[in-house]
Order: sequence, then C-alpha cells, then structure tokens
Amino acid sequence: MFVADCLTINDKGHLCIDQADTLALAAKYGTPLYVMSESQIRTNCRRYQESLQRFYDGNGLIVYASKAFCCKEICRIIAQEGLGLDVVSGGELYTAASVKFPGEKIYFHGNHKTPSELVAALEYGVGTIVVDNLEELSLLDRLACAQGKQQEIMLRIKPGVDAHTHQFIRTGQIDSKFGFALETGEALLAVQEAARLSHIRLTGLHCHIGSQIFDTEPFLLAVRVMVGFLAQIRQETGLTLHRLNLGGGYGICYTPDDDPPMYEAYLQRVSTVVREVCGLLDFPLPYLLLEPGRSIVGPAGVTLYTVGSVKEIPGVRTYVSIDGGMTDNPRYALYQSRYQILNARQAAQPQTMRVTLAGRCCESGDLIGEDLPVQALAPGDTVAVLSTGAYNYSMASHYNRVPNPPVVMVRDAEDRLIVKRESWEDLAARDL
Amino acid sequence: MFVADCLTINDKGHLCIDQADTLALAAKYGTPLYVMSESQIRTNCRRYQESLQRFYDGNGLIVYASKAFCCKEICRIIAQEGLGLDVVSGGELYTAASVKFPGEKIYFHGNHKTPSELVAALEYGVGTIVVDNLEELSLLDRLACAQGKQQEIMLRIKPGVDAHTHQFIRTGQIDSKFGFALETGEALLAVQEAARLSHIRLTGLHCHIGSQIFDTEPFLLAVRVMVGFLAQIRQETGLTLHRLNLGGGYGICYTPDDDPPMYEAYLQRVSTVVREVCGLLDFPLPYLLLEPGRSIVGPAGVTLYTVGSVKEIPGVRTYVSIDGGMTDNPRYALYQSRYQILNARQAAQPQTMRVTLAGRCCESGDLIGEDLPVQALAPGDTVAVLSTGAYNYSMASHYNRVPNPPVVMVRDAEDRLIVKRESWEDLAARDL
Repeated sequence: MFVADCLTINDKGHLCIDQADTLALAAKYGTPLYVMSESQIRTNCRRYQESLQRFYDGNGLIVYASKAFCCKEICRIIAQEGLGLDVVSGGELYTAASVKFPGEKIYFHGNHKTPSELVAALEYGVGTIVVDNLEELSLLDRLACAQGKQQEIMLRIKPGVDAHTHQFIRTGQIDSKFGFALETGEALLAVQEAARLSHIRLTGLHCHIGSQIFDTEPFLLAVRVMVGFLAQIRQETGLTLHRLNLGGGYGICYTPDDDPPMYEAYLQRVSTVVREVCGLLDFPLPYLLLEPGRSIVGPAGVTLYTVGSVKEIPGVRTYVSIDGGMTDNPRYALYQSRYQILNARQAAQPQTMRVTLAGRCCESGDLIGEDLPVQALAPGDTVAVLSTGAYNYSMASHYNRVPNPPVVMVRDAEDRLIVKRESWEDLAARDL
Repeated sequence: MFVADCLTINDKGHLCIDQADTLALAAKYGTPLYVMSESQIRTNCRRYQESLQRFYDGNGLIVYASKAFCCKEICRIIAQEGLGLDVVSGGELYTAASVKFPGEKIYFHGNHKTPSELVAALEYGVGTIVVDNLEELSLLDRLACAQGKQQEIMLRIKPGVDAHTHQFIRTGQIDSKFGFALETGEALLAVQEAARLSHIRLTGLHCHIGSQIFDTEPFLLAVRVMVGFLAQIRQETGLTLHRLNLGGGYGICYTPDDDPPMYEAYLQRVSTVVREVCGLLDFPLPYLLLEPGRSIVGPAGVTLYTVGSVKEIPGVRTYVSIDGGMTDNPRYALYQSRYQILNARQAAQPQTMRVTLAGRCCESGDLIGEDLPVQALAPGDTVAVLSTGAYNYSMASHYNRVPNPPVVMVRDAEDRLIVKRESWEDLAARDL
C-alpha cells in the first residue's frame, strides 16, 4: 500500500513509521519534522550486503553515499552495519571523522576537492580518493609526498552510458563535468599518469551513470564498458587493477506507480555480467564496490507538516499551505519530483481530495507537488510526505530564514532526536 | 560595460567592486566569497526614495524585501537609509529585531505564518501584518486579543495580473497560493470579515505580481485594478482604506542583454496612473508602499570562486569547475538564470572562451551557467559571477555538507566581514 515497508497504520487510523505514531511524534517534536526509520535503513543495508554475499561471494563492499543524508548518527549506523562511506566534501568527511568512521572504508569523491580537503583526507587516513581530473591527480601526489604517504586512489571514468533519467542527474555520458572520458583517450592517459606518480597508488576504476534509475540495462552496459577498459589497461600498460566501483543510482519508490528493480535482481544481473565479461577477457574478478545512497535512506524517511490554510480556487485547484516547503525539500522546485502524501490522522481513508501542497516561502514555485491525491485536509491537520529520507535534509536551505527542521530516528517504536531543530538564533549566529 | 555601477577595473586590469580589488579580497578572505557594495546598496535605496519624493510628493514608503538578502548588517543599512523592511518569517523578524529595526516600519508577509511567529510579531510591535488568508485573519485576531492589542493589517490581494515572467515567480494571477482572489468575491468577503474583527485594524491592500519583471505595463494594470477595488470597498462597505502596497518585482541586469526600466521612469508611470485612476474615481490618493528587494541588493553583489580543473571535451564543451556552486547559488539549477562572468585578474581582456561553469556538488545539474563567454581561465584563477547580491546567500544550502561562504561588505574600498564563513564544525553542530 505504501512506498516503504516501515510505514503502517495503527488501530486509530494514524500513519506509523517503524511502529511509532506520526501524530505523537509531531506533537512531541513539533513540525516540520523529518522522521527516519532505523529498522528500514538497517534492513536496506543488509539487503545489499546479503545480495553481494549471495551473488558475488561477498567479494566487494557496499559503500553508503552520504550525500543522500549525512549526519553523525547515520555515519554511526552505517559503520555498525559494516558498510563503507562515500563522502564528497570536507564537511561530510568531518562528520564521518567526528564519529571515528574507519578511514580505510571511506571513499572521497567529487569533481572539485580543495587542497585543504585533500590534506584533511590524507591526515585522517581516508582509504580511497576517487580522483576526478589531472589537476587533482598531481595536487594529491604533491600533498601525499608532503605527508610522506602513498595514497590509494581510483579514477572516475565516464563510460559513455546514458541512463535515461532526468537530465540533471545523468552523469555517465561524455558531456559531463565528472571524470575522464573513455572515448577521447583521456582516461587511458590518466591511468598512465597515475601509474607514473610515486605518492599515488592506483588500484581501480569508478563510474557513476546517474541517479534514480529504474532500468538495469544501463548498469549492465556500464559493467561491460568498464571491465573492457580494465582489460585494455592491462594490455596497454601491464597494470592489473583489482577494484571496480560501479557507483550508485538505483531508483526507489516515490509513488505507487514507481517500480524499481529489487536489489537482489539487480545484484544478480550485475554479478552475472561481471563474471561473463571477465571470463571472456580472461580478467580476474574484481573487488566490487557499489554506492547506494537514496535506496538506503530514501524510503526510510517521512516529513511531517502542519496545514495552515486550505484555499479552494473554484475551477482552478486547491492550495494547501504547510509550515515547510522548498527549504526542507527542494526536489519539486529542482526536478518536479513526485511524492505520495497522506493525512497522517486518516491514513487508511480514501483519498478524496486533489491538492497542490504549497510551501511557506515567498515564491510561487515553492510547492511539494501539484494535484496530489490525499484524504480530506483542514487547517491544523498533519500531512505526511513519504520517501523523503534522501536529498531532503541534505539539500535543505535557509531561504526566507526558515530554520531547518530536526531529524528524529525511530527504531521499533522508540524515538530519539538525532539532529536538533535549528533556532532563529542559530540562523543569525554568524551575522556580525 | 558591466551590469552594475559598482564594478570597475583598476590599473592592474583586476575587477574592483566599490573600488576594492576583488583579487585582494579573495586572497584576504578565501573563496568562495560573496562581496557586496555598500555604496551601491545605499545608492539604490536613495534612487527609489528620491523618485517617490519627486513623483508622489514622498507620500509613501520604500520597503526593502529582506528575503532577497537578510542579515543583521543589511537590516542596519536599510534602517539608516530610512526604508521599511519586509519580512516573511520569524527568522527574518528575529534578525531585524536583533538590530532594533523600528517595528512600525516592518511589514510581515507570507502565505503561512505560524502562531509562534505571529506572537513574536505582536510582541515586537510589527507595524503591519499582511494577512494572506481567512485562517490567519481569525488566528491573528485571537492572538492580538490575548495581548490586549489591535493589530494593523493589510490584505494580500490577487489582482489577476499575469506578469510575463518565469512561471515560478509569477504570483498575481488567480492560480496562486498567495492571497485573496478578486474575481471570486473572496477578497471583498475578507475585507468585510477584517472590518468585523475588533483586534484587527485594516488600513490597506497589498499585491505582488511577480519577480524580475522588465515591463511596466503589468504594474500599471495592477494599479488600475487595485485602486478600482479600493473604490469598490468604499462603495460597498463605507470603508476608505488609505494605503496601497504594490509589492516588488522590478527586474535587474544579470547580463548586458537585460534592459530593465529605470526606477525613475517606473515610479513616474506608477504615480501618474495612481493619480489618474484616483481622480476618475474621486478616491483620495493612497499612501504608497513599494517593496523592492532584488533591485536594491542584486546588482551590488559579486561572488568570487577559485577554478579547480578546466576540462575541454573536444566537440562538446569546456567545463570549468569552481569551489562553490548550487550550494551558494541555486538560481541556475532552479530557474536556468543567466549570469555575466569574468576572470577577475583579466577583467578588461576580450572574452575568448565559452565555458560551462560547474559547481562542486555531486550532481550534474550543479552549474552556474552554460556556454558563458569569459576571458581565458586556468586552474587557480579567480572567477567573478556578477549580480549575485540577491537570492544567493539567502537561498544557500548545505548540500554535500558544503559550508556557506562568508559575506564581505565594501564601501569606498574599505572592506569588512558582515557574515562569517561557516565551518565544518558549524555544519555538524546540531548533530547528536
């Protein structure tokens, strides 16, 4: 019925997440409020790991892409589950370091790492830096030399695969700001350059073909291209790279219409193709890295809002205003993303209204969605927006000086605050 | 040559803002860096005020829309210039209050004000609350009653004017989340309801037809509609409302192709039409309120970035990566906004490259612009993006846990920090 397993309805008809009544949470913590299901997050981690074990003999690592949702507590949970962590900035690395996330399992990504971020990564002992461009490669070699270290790296490769998703989150094709292109010979030159540098140790390749992808074919195509390139590198340079990082991008359910592939089926297919291509090319099976973010935390989150006004404009549409909006969830404004919404008090009732859920910012584009089916809504009601665990808190802004909501984690009906609500004082704390 | 008067080039060929060398500012404060010209801000304030004086005998008030850029120092400058302040949230009100902004000159807007925000507004003595909907009207009456006050208000009206701008920022038409519709009779009912409530004092009407508008015709049309409604209210209820707030929305130059109307010409035309319609309808000339935001601070700002890599993809395009992006300026991602950019060291040189300026976030859509003409750029260069004083700092996010840049104010070559740079510690400060 719902887009995530952690959502149920209790005997009062209220929406529950991880067995906690969302109305009780809204009353306890106030709205807007992000709520996450710890059980769902841990289950999602384990599904990936078990599939990797089952279909690839566990010869790899699931790496959580923390850009989807990063705070100290999620880093702790990911560490407890034994996953790796993908960071893309000094801020994410700082967060990981502050909970002593094992450095050797951290992968540092990004198309523009600053010198101070690379220094911080070297000092912390980040296991792998995924190098994006030649300037970064030579900068990293110099910085590693200064610290008397040899840094393990992977190179980010553009496999030239178009992943049939929203253009903003399609990153594997040649026209991309990320990585080295295969077609132009740039990628092979980067491998040769990395091999030449003495404070760099190149151990593998990385690619990422996009986000919120429902079709497994582009992933399989990327596997073929990347393993082919591994074989080409061995042939042309004598270098055998033993690690292959396929990035993330697995789609999730935002609405009941979405039909993403099961993790298990996905990993089975990927494993099959890796084995097949490696067999054909007589290449040793690489250590496999996968970097899910959205599919770990996305379905585990809901956002709760309080309704202000309900404006029915005859013959046009009905606007329902809420006490949050694009400041806590900019995905509709950015990507016209679709969501499932519910009146949390009457979650099992028929959805008799169609509403445009309007945020509180002074901007017409501040909407959570248009023409969304929902149960009858009135001022004071609590609205739940589902599947908001990824790219909501992490993309939140302070537009209109609206504070960021807190994040509450629930596990088996027990709730705890994991990120405190921002105050008006916090917003102005750096103003002089 | 440039999109704002505060920008010049010194004898070294460097870009200057308010006579300060941008390269020196980048070296002193680091990048990314927001820089604002105080002289330009004050000049813009005075142009509006002088036009109001000249064409409307000063019978009104220029109200700065702080959502464009809100921090303590801008509130101080606006207070010193004698303007009013438009706030849309408790956070903006808190900022204004923290520098003792005169309450009677504050206008509190927004389609969803929370009860605690309305209480804070009543306690601070906010002069005017611009009421958006009936729920808010009755809530405010109850809250004012509880404080033993009568609160002055205006009503936000949808005049049914389409302002020919980007759909996200077109707000005057009937299909809008904001305000009361004229066509349906809703607006007149709201006036009657407000007149009935004893802790509310209705003194005028507000409308806002959109943002970044270059054509004065929609404003003039809105004036005709709104004055007509003032006369209708007098006829049907006996109530004469003496204040008319025409909102903001005046376009600015983002690129040399933009050709916004001069403030003076705009105010002259508006004044003429107000006088003409009031004359026809025998209605007393209202006290006029105008709410510019972007046109006060937008042209006064530049953002400085450091170039990381330059990736020329033969036959495709050239990506230039910078140490900021959609986290400090989401306007391209949200609205495909166009900007003028410069190599700050060679600002007078011919623009021989065309580049796609790519932000540092792990997202293909994180661009500042595509195919932008610019002087030759290499790693380590400082890029200036012009006209970023509005809706940049105020819309900044922490996506990828990238800290917000600091804001430096310059006046006659003297620089001072007005918002401190955010640290990695700040980003994780509320994490438990």
